[in-house]
Amino acid sequence: MTTDNPASRPRVVVLGGGFGGVGAARALKDADVDVVVIDQHDYHTFQPLLYQVATDLLETTAVGHPLRDLFHDQPNATVHKATATAVDLDKREVLLSDLDPVPYDYLIIALGAQVNFFGTEGAEEHAFPMYTLADAVRVREHVLRKWEAADNDHSLLEDGALNVVVVGGGPTGVESAGALAELYRNVFCEDYRNLPQEQARIILVEASPELFTMFKAKLRGYAKNALGKLSVEVLTGEAVASIAPTRVTLKSGTVLPAHTLIWGAGLQAHPIVHSLGVQLQRGNRVAVGSDLTLAQHPEVYVVGDIAWITDPETNKVLPQLGSVALQSGEWAGANIAREVAGETTKPFEYNDKGTMATIGRGAAVVQFEGGRTMQGKLAFLAWGAVHLALLSTGEDRAKAVVDWTWAGFGHKRPTRITVSTEKTA
Amino acid sequence: MTTDNPASRPRVVVLGGGFGGVGAARALKDADVDVVVIDQHDYHTFQPLLYQVATDLLETTAVGHPLRDLFHDQPNATVHKATATAVDLDKREVLLSDLDPVPYDYLIIALGAQVNFFGTEGAEEHAFPMYTLADAVRVREHVLRKWEAADNDHSLLEDGALNVVVVGGGPTGVESAGALAELYRNVFCEDYRNLPQEQARIILVEASPELFTMFKAKLRGYAKNALGKLSVEVLTGEAVASIAPTRVTLKSGTVLPAHTLIWGAGLQAHPIVHSLGVQLQRGNRVAVGSDLTLAQHPEVYVVGDIAWITDPETNKVLPQLGSVALQSGEWAGANIAREVAGETTKPFEYNDKGTMATIGRGAAVVQFEGGRTMQGKLAFLAWGAVHLALLSTGEDRAKAVVDWTWAGFGHKRPTRITVSTEKTA
Repeated sequence: MTTDNPASRPRVVVLGGGFGGVGAARALKDADVDVVVIDQHDYHTFQPLLYQVATDLLETTAVGHPLRDLFHDQPNATVHKATATAVDLDKREVLLSDLDPVPYDYLIIALGAQVNFFGTEGAEEHAFPMYTLADAVRVREHVLRKWEAADNDHSLLEDGALNVVVVGGGPTGVESAGALAELYRNVFCEDYRNLPQEQARIILVEASPELFTMFKAKLRGYAKNALGKLSVEVLTGEAVASIAPTRVTLKSGTVLPAHTLIWGAGLQAHPIVHSLGVQLQRGNRVAVGSDLTLAQHPEVYVVGDIAWITDPETNKVLPQLGSVALQSGEWAGANIAREVAGETTKPFEYNDKGTMATIGRGAAVVQFEGGRTMQGKLAFLAWGAVHLALLSTGEDRAKAVVDWTWAGFGHKRPTRITVSTEKTA
Repeated sequence: MTTDNPASRPRVVVLGGGFGGVGAARALKDADVDVVVIDQHDYHTFQPLLYQVATDLLETTAVGHPLRDLFHDQPNATVHKATATAVDLDKREVLLSDLDPVPYDYLIIALGAQVNFFGTEGAEEHAFPMYTLADAVRVREHVLRKWEAADNDHSLLEDGALNVVVVGGGPTGVESAGALAELYRNVFCEDYRNLPQEQARIILVEASPELFTMFKAKLRGYAKNALGKLSVEVLTGEAVASIAPTRVTLKSGTVLPAHTLIWGAGLQAHPIVHSLGVQLQRGNRVAVGSDLTLAQHPEVYVVGDIAWITDPETNKVLPQLGSVALQSGEWAGANIAREVAGETTKPFEYNDKGTMATIGRGAAVVQFEGGRTMQGKLAFLAWGAVHLALLSTGEDRAKAVVDWTWAGFGHKRPTRITVSTEKTA
């Protein structure tokens, strides 16, 4: 990485190329600074649609966009692929794996989170998390391989090879279970005509008594009903005790035969937080002040899933959502732009535009801030419109339209192929 | 695999899901037979556009289409993912890796070819072939990794990390070199603003004195000129002696610093040919009679790249091209349909519709049977129209249009991301 800084203008290092990091870097476009964006991958992930990659509804490249592409029109920004391992707050530099440290004048930490298995036995080895693009691709390929294996050896059916346990009754779990059921009931039934659909169960497990706790009772009821129509079995008030390659054991003692377990149940902050020397909040998140900076370090901003941001209006902690990440990232960038221009920073104000989720084709729920709700086909269309608008570029939008159109018309999924790049003899 | 044959109608086993195999199976749609298509992958590859996957112009899933999808509307066909290892001509069964043998009444062998390094030292370990979808993905990821590595360590530039040697002056080599040059000169120059383009050389090596020997002199001149405009260095009359991870040595003694060598220079038939007990032709291809059957085995057809088909009109052997594979496959299927219906088979007639290739955006050559030629923008448009028409489904066509449109308007390549699914700690 070239980290010479011949110009004397301040360098802003942005760690992470997700919603928070990209929002922050873009907000600095017109500021008199050098922006250095560092991510361990060469792509930006549109996380809200990850489950569609896992269930063959969208291409990898509709959801993962080249990170460098997003800054072609921003001359003051460069992108570097590197893994940040720690922050040295005193020396004001970021330590990188295998590369020299990068000094900063301002730092924006937007490294997000990673899965939290809460110590569940066997989860580390056998569960499939759903937080990154690589996670989604792994789920997709694993499920396809199970169907191919069962096609060649029907005895695997009895062993539950096609069953999937989805853990977590939040958006990740519900959306994954719904989309997987659509794939099973509409596509695989044609792809694998000889395999009995009733031996392909999808079981959604949630520890609390209700799915979708962030939604009103009416929407929760709608979601449960929509899942039922797709033959998704919902087990609420149940938690996973242990996970083996072909079996999932619940705390109630029930053993579910399943070769796939998708974990959509919990997050913990990126481990870089341990280098900050601050007391961590629940899920290892880092508390920030009202202007999103770290205490005693006005030059360090923390945004997105890694941050513990308290909304001053409600005094509640903001959830780990894409909209919070994007808005807090943009705000941090704008605050630095203000500082560089000699102005003072402003306290963050979150603009809650509502919450939405899909359960399957034509089935979605939307809850607006203020209390109004939508459900069913209209909510599904609203969901589609909003997500199309949010995708990074016209190119990504066009791709999503192509994939969704074909999936909608023909129940086809374009992406259900497994291209192994391992060399074979 | 379920290979019970309760109906007494004949079973046609088709080995290979490429142009030959799919053409053959589709031609049997209305025949009173059971068609069993066996391929080692779950996808059909549109091979003529592989180089566009390697150079980030097209998505993997625009070129690799789910094989099962192509038979949703064909009730007499089933698709199985399995690796055929040998044919037992006497027992009339196909041996599979890890699975029971599959008996056949008719067999169509359409397993294509694999790369032939002609014993070149180091090629097996270090060269990147360009025949399969996995090959193309490997090239793409390797090249991206080299640019990312050079971005983090500029000393790699001097070592030739960004240089690519492309071996072979046929369509695979020329199209790959041209598309790679477009990627380098139009996209990477923006993605990696700090890296000097002149240290990213693309060198095309061809042993014979001319590129594109199948084309007329006029088109060859045009192609060479178009490559020059893209700063592709063309070395004709040169062959590769040995390949090391960062160096390519030519037979003339010249050593080229390059961390990537793309091999588009030669093919040999799929190794299943060795189980047939017949004398093999050049490149291990299997000679067939005029109706595409194996001598003494009228129930066994051999089609596509694996076959040695002599055109009775010209007495020349047909080249290993997609159009030959598709037409011979369809003809074999039609011949079996005739036999099952009590008719006699017909000798294969190849309908040569001409040859085309692209060198870069707006630059292509077309040579029609009969002698007429086209070059430049009009040829490029014709090339695009023909390839769009040939893609398997409307979905694939729509995807190619989206990718090409954005690449055309903005020099953007949507697919230049590397999603590693290896688990990391």
